[in-house]
Amino acid sequence: MSNAAIRRIGVLTGGGDCPGLNAVIRAVTKTAIIEYGLEVLGIEDAYLGLLEDRVRPLGRNDVSNILTLGGTILGTTNKVNPMKYRTGTDADGHPIIADVSDRAAATCRKHGIDVLVCIGGDGTMAASYGMQRHGIPIVGVPKTIDNDLMCTDVTFGFTTAAQTATDALDRIHTTAMSHHRIMLVEIMGRNAGWLTLHAGLAAGADIILVPEIPYTVESIAQAYRRRAEQGKKFTIIAVSEGAAPREGEQIGEITDDPVEPLRLGGISEILARQVADKTGAETRATVLGHVQRGGTPCAYDRVLATHFGSAAMHLAAAGNWGRMVAMQEGRITSVPLEAVAGQQRLIPANHPLLAVARHTGVSFGDEEA
Amino acid sequence: MSNAAIRRIGVLTGGGDCPGLNAVIRAVTKTAIIEYGLEVLGIEDAYLGLLEDRVRPLGRNDVSNILTLGGTILGTTNKVNPMKYRTGTDADGHPIIADVSDRAAATCRKHGIDVLVCIGGDGTMAASYGMQRHGIPIVGVPKTIDNDLMCTDVTFGFTTAAQTATDALDRIHTTAMSHHRIMLVEIMGRNAGWLTLHAGLAAGADIILVPEIPYTVESIAQAYRRRAEQGKKFTIIAVSEGAAPREGEQIGEITDDPVEPLRLGGISEILARQVADKTGAETRATVLGHVQRGGTPCAYDRVLATHFGSAAMHLAAAGNWGRMVAMQEGRITSVPLEAVAGQQRLIPANHPLLAVARHTGVSFGDEEA
Amino acid sequence: MSNAAIRRIGVLTGGGDCPGLNAVIRAVTKTAIIEYGLEVLGIEDAYLGLLEDRVRPLGRNDVSNILTLGGTILGTTNKVNPMKYRTGTDADGHPIIADVSDRAAATCRKHGIDVLVCIGGDGTMAASYGMQRHGIPIVGVPKTIDNDLMCTDVTFGFTTAAQTATDALDRIHTTAMSHHRIMLVEIMGRNAGWLTLHAGLAAGADIILVPEIPYTVESIAQAYRRRAEQGKKFTIIAVSEGAAPREGEQIGEITDDPVEPLRLGGISEILARQVADKTGAETRATVLGHVQRGGTPCAYDRVLATHFGSAAMHLAAAGNWGRMVAMQEGRITSVPLEAVAGQQRLIPANHPLLAVARHTGVSFGDEEA
Amino acid sequence: MSNAAIRRIGVLTGGGDCPGLNAVIRAVTKTAIIEYGLEVLGIEDAYLGLLEDRVRPLGRNDVSNILTLGGTILGTTNKVNPMKYRTGTDADGHPIIADVSDRAAATCRKHGIDVLVCIGGDGTMAASYGMQRHGIPIVGVPKTIDNDLMCTDVTFGFTTAAQTATDALDRIHTTAMSHHRIMLVEIMGRNAGWLTLHAGLAAGADIILVPEIPYTVESIAQAYRRRAEQGKKFTIIAVSEGAAPREGEQIGEITDDPVEPLRLGGISEILARQVADKTGAETRATVLGHVQRGGTPCAYDRVLATHFGSAAMHLAAAGNWGRMVAMQEGRITSVPLEAVAGQQRLIPANHPLLAVARHTGVSFGDEEA
Repeated sequence: MSNAAIRRIGVLTGGGDCPGLNAVIRAVTKTAIIEYGLEVLGIEDAYLGLLEDRVRPLGRNDVSNILTLGGTILGTTNKVNPMKYRTGTDADGHPIIADVSDRAAATCRKHGIDVLVCIGGDGTMAASYGMQRHGIPIVGVPKTIDNDLMCTDVTFGFTTAAQTATDALDRIHTTAMSHHRIMLVEIMGRNAGWLTLHAGLAAGADIILVPEIPYTVESIAQAYRRRAEQGKKFTIIAVSEGAAPREGEQIGEITDDPVEPLRLGGISEILARQVADKTGAETRATVLGHVQRGGTPCAYDRVLATHFGSAAMHLAAAGNWGRMVAMQEGRITSVPLEAVAGQQRLIPANHPLLAVARHTGVSFGDEEA
Repeated sequence: MSNAAIRRIGVLTGGGDCPGLNAVIRAVTKTAIIEYGLEVLGIEDAYLGLLEDRVRPLGRNDVSNILTLGGTILGTTNKVNPMKYRTGTDADGHPIIADVSDRAAATCRKHGIDVLVCIGGDGTMAASYGMQRHGIPIVGVPKTIDNDLMCTDVTFGFTTAAQTATDALDRIHTTAMSHHRIMLVEIMGRNAGWLTLHAGLAAGADIILVPEIPYTVESIAQAYRRRAEQGKKFTIIAVSEGAAPREGEQIGEITDDPVEPLRLGGISEILARQVADKTGAETRATVLGHVQRGGTPCAYDRVLATHFGSAAMHLAAAGNWGRMVAMQEGRITSVPLEAVAGQQRLIPANHPLLAVARHTGVSFGDEEA
Repeated sequence: MSNAAIRRIGVLTGGGDCPGLNAVIRAVTKTAIIEYGLEVLGIEDAYLGLLEDRVRPLGRNDVSNILTLGGTILGTTNKVNPMKYRTGTDADGHPIIADVSDRAAATCRKHGIDVLVCIGGDGTMAASYGMQRHGIPIVGVPKTIDNDLMCTDVTFGFTTAAQTATDALDRIHTTAMSHHRIMLVEIMGRNAGWLTLHAGLAAGADIILVPEIPYTVESIAQAYRRRAEQGKKFTIIAVSEGAAPREGEQIGEITDDPVEPLRLGGISEILARQVADKTGAETRATVLGHVQRGGTPCAYDRVLATHFGSAAMHLAAAGNWGRMVAMQEGRITSVPLEAVAGQQRLIPANHPLLAVARHTGVSFGDEEA
Repeated sequence: MSNAAIRRIGVLTGGGDCPGLNAVIRAVTKTAIIEYGLEVLGIEDAYLGLLEDRVRPLGRNDVSNILTLGGTILGTTNKVNPMKYRTGTDADGHPIIADVSDRAAATCRKHGIDVLVCIGGDGTMAASYGMQRHGIPIVGVPKTIDNDLMCTDVTFGFTTAAQTATDALDRIHTTAMSHHRIMLVEIMGRNAGWLTLHAGLAAGADIILVPEIPYTVESIAQAYRRRAEQGKKFTIIAVSEGAAPREGEQIGEITDDPVEPLRLGGISEILARQVADKTGAETRATVLGHVQRGGTPCAYDRVLATHFGSAAMHLAAAGNWGRMVAMQEGRITSVPLEAVAGQQRLIPANHPLLAVARHTGVSFGDEEA
């Protein structure tokens, strides 16, 4: 298919919610219409919309006033991958999983979609292979509040989520000071600690626990005691939901009662108990949860999302298919989809912000006694 | 003691953190110094500061730039009541509880404190009786983000906390819409649902569950289904931490596995499971927690806290002791401390906002099928 | 017309923009449909929509997701009063002004509007007389960010605007401190100083200038000098756009050059010059302007606007016409339209917040040397 | 001077206020103490503090809880350059300007300051030459909300200021829509339009006017008319304070009355008049002013400022003097001070965001008819 043949663009949003999705949809749509004179079709609820043929035209008015809105006007789901789709159950009641990418591709063809712009995380990018194999050109736009996608230094939504987490830490700071408590705030990030690291630094957290750096409770307790010696009566701990202790320590091994650990929720609540036991200090845990995924994107993310969306449309129009937009070294560029799918960008041990944090007095719970 | 004899005012903050404490401290201090030419002493960490003789002078510069700060520069604790103080353990290791109000009163006398301004909730007000019995005049300032103190229509901190909860609901709204989910947001309020009612109304929650109105899961499910029939694919539920089912239903009776309920945290997580089971919809729970107690007070609360603080100082100077500042029918007034202590103001069944909510389509989970 | 005969409600928004208009529209519409089973028609652009027959039905979906939006989905104008409408120009080119209320009323009748809910300020309320005279029942909802409507203690939008102005004052505070400057912030309010008083108190302004209290530049300068003697190197002045000097002083009499005063904009810039001349201090003025009128309403205003809207619908349904919803002594009630129209509620000299301000060290620029 | 000899670091903040100054001071101080065991001295009010010997020690407690504060705890001034200092007046009353850098350097030597960390804009960097000539090693940290310093892609404070301007544009958006107006918002930037470009893009402004792209009023009017043809009744214009018309057009040539233009304030008010005349539309101007310089820094800027401050301390300790910290291609690096001083980084004609804006429908007021 040559560039000249492009007449119609499809766009979908996949995966978890993320501030800035609508800004990308708007930029893709406006650039397609204004710069290239193309038609744009919106797919509802990610790949599910292709399987169920829920596709609608997007005009300029459809994307008016959506720049500031959180969420996605197209809907999304993080449960549908056409390559591994549950088509029914067998005689024994086990689910039948099949690759139905051809059905999704057929919907694209039915509507005359020449290129499909997929806004999503590594799952969405991985699902696009099935589409490409069935002849549907793909252009990807990276999306994750966790900032853990490969090949791009930053994704839209991350800066907003970091701001939301920072605002929460700021609020909790005043309570920690007033009550002389250890306050733990649990921040999203199962495998990558970017959000916790940035929000922790931004809010002046005293201890930052990320999945990449295994902690010991003893090290956390010592950081608390060092502060106490300096006259600081409170401590703020920013902890990723995926933070984990060093090998040899066990999460939840805090009581002989087998049910006790189960009463506790995420890592922050378990740690709150463990740290209280070790220090005698009063501790409290707060799990930020879904507030980190929603709301209006911050100015930075609106600009980035608009830039990504416009750049994706240029890739689509230029025939640069099978690629994902990326931000590298301060510039918008693109990378092959296969370099991204199914991988995760973790905080490397030599990342400069880790040193910045340590040099300004932050503990990562890994210091030896 | 005649009014003329007053030379020195003490001020303390008790109970949980609440936005606006510093604004009250500032107004008490400034009014005392500017209007009455008195000296002000700050007691650290509520009544604990009186027991441990931690008292410091507060001058105009000490209260500069604290109006906007969350928390309290004096520190607080919600664990110390001089009337029921743990003085040690007996031979069997049981705690010895004694009334040490005389010790607290002695500290006041030692520092020449003529009147003690106590900023706190019903616990702090109750503790003041011991002080009064030992001859220390008390003036109270009501404090609770839950807004459940008797005799005052509103307390500082409540409007800020309602705004914080509303902001969180707004953020979660976009995710609910994008994912077609039922999102539950758990808001503070063990016995009184004011915070949930106001935030729920402000954020356009579809279902509001408060302790005063027992719910049934079936009624919640029906509210969801009615929305679905109208084409609404998502539902927002604002739920007080103290919300409870109608008699006959049991919290947590959701599985045969005895450990399962324990895995779940607060009421929002239990309900998330129950509602998912009954509706087949995807559900998610978020517990807002301590973010509701901290942060800079909103403009409304800064004005109210300043008004309360200044009014408390006038009571103290006028010899109107044993009273608490209050807001009634839009005016600042005062009420006897005994009318407040140990009671709670719940949402009455005929409160107009309940009707407003129902008339604009809100379900309280108590409607019959 | 009896209550039983009501089938259709019209709603319009008039006057300047105000946060919460959409919340009122939503509450009127939902209450009409859910509680009374009525139809609702929205009039576009205030009375202009009645003159130009721009009327559209409002269903539940039309008011979905508008609770959080600033502005009004119906549009507004503050330039059209059917009682004094410019119908053309005479032979000499002078405008012909006529009462065309009958034309507006005819549009109501054409669409079967039984009661018209008018959300607006004193201008909108005054315009409603023409409608009533022509047989259209009116129910009013008070709207003004200035909070200067008679017979209601508070209007929706005011608390949001006060918050916006407070946020701006907070921002400017840090600059004033860092640069040791006198910073003047000009806040809306031509005749009434409510917004400036509340925002000034909330932000800890050192000097508050309102239309109700004429100032002298000398008094302002002295307040600055008193602060300087206390070691305070900066001063924050919150000034209403309608603030004015005491008789005998002239605005702008600051130079022999007749053009010079004209270079300066509002009162804040004139005062910045005058105060700099008198004190030798560096001064800067900021005019907040239209940012005070827009944006999402705060939680307090969303609840109040919803309450107002629902209450207005009850008045309409009960046949309590010719009345405006009001908040008095902490309760929603109603007052006759004639008690409101064409009047303004100014800050009375004995308003308690004035005393609160003075007792906490605020100058109103009226103190004698 | 060898690295080994360093024992004491001086730090000062110069130029206009900027969110994040305190975060840099904190990071410099903490890194100096924690990582290098050095002493830190804070200079008050930029170079003025060196001329007046106002220097104070900064310990860890002095920089506690300042991360979130706007402004600078050290004070600042943008009026003192030791190389061009007004030392008095001559017989004719003309100011005597002299280079008193030696006096500033003497203060450094008196206090044993081995390296001076200067946080400021191009003026502050230029003033540092005098210090270096007199033997005081300098390390620079770039500061400007305008983002117009050479050799660094971004400065702390810019992202916060862009957010503040975006928030204001968002608020004004709802009013523009409701009133069908053209709303102009004037944003800081005398020579460089970065702030206006970013905020304009982030808020979905329809027209963006920056100093780098001369406009014509006719082009602006046409952009408005094109929107009107698409049914859009309002237009948002983000305009830099330094925006200027194309050669041949004159600012303010809007009336025969010579005084008229003087009545009008900045460029936004002049344009409001001109555009109203040309389009017949209702226009309103808002000048954001100093609110853009103050307030708590956003999370992004807190991290960046902390990174800059820590990096500056490493330069100081490593003997890499005469250099300024910079962000280039997503990495922290350093550049010689002489590459920065006295220059400005303008938006280049080929900057990608200009294309992004045009492709998404933004007019820069320079399009031909």
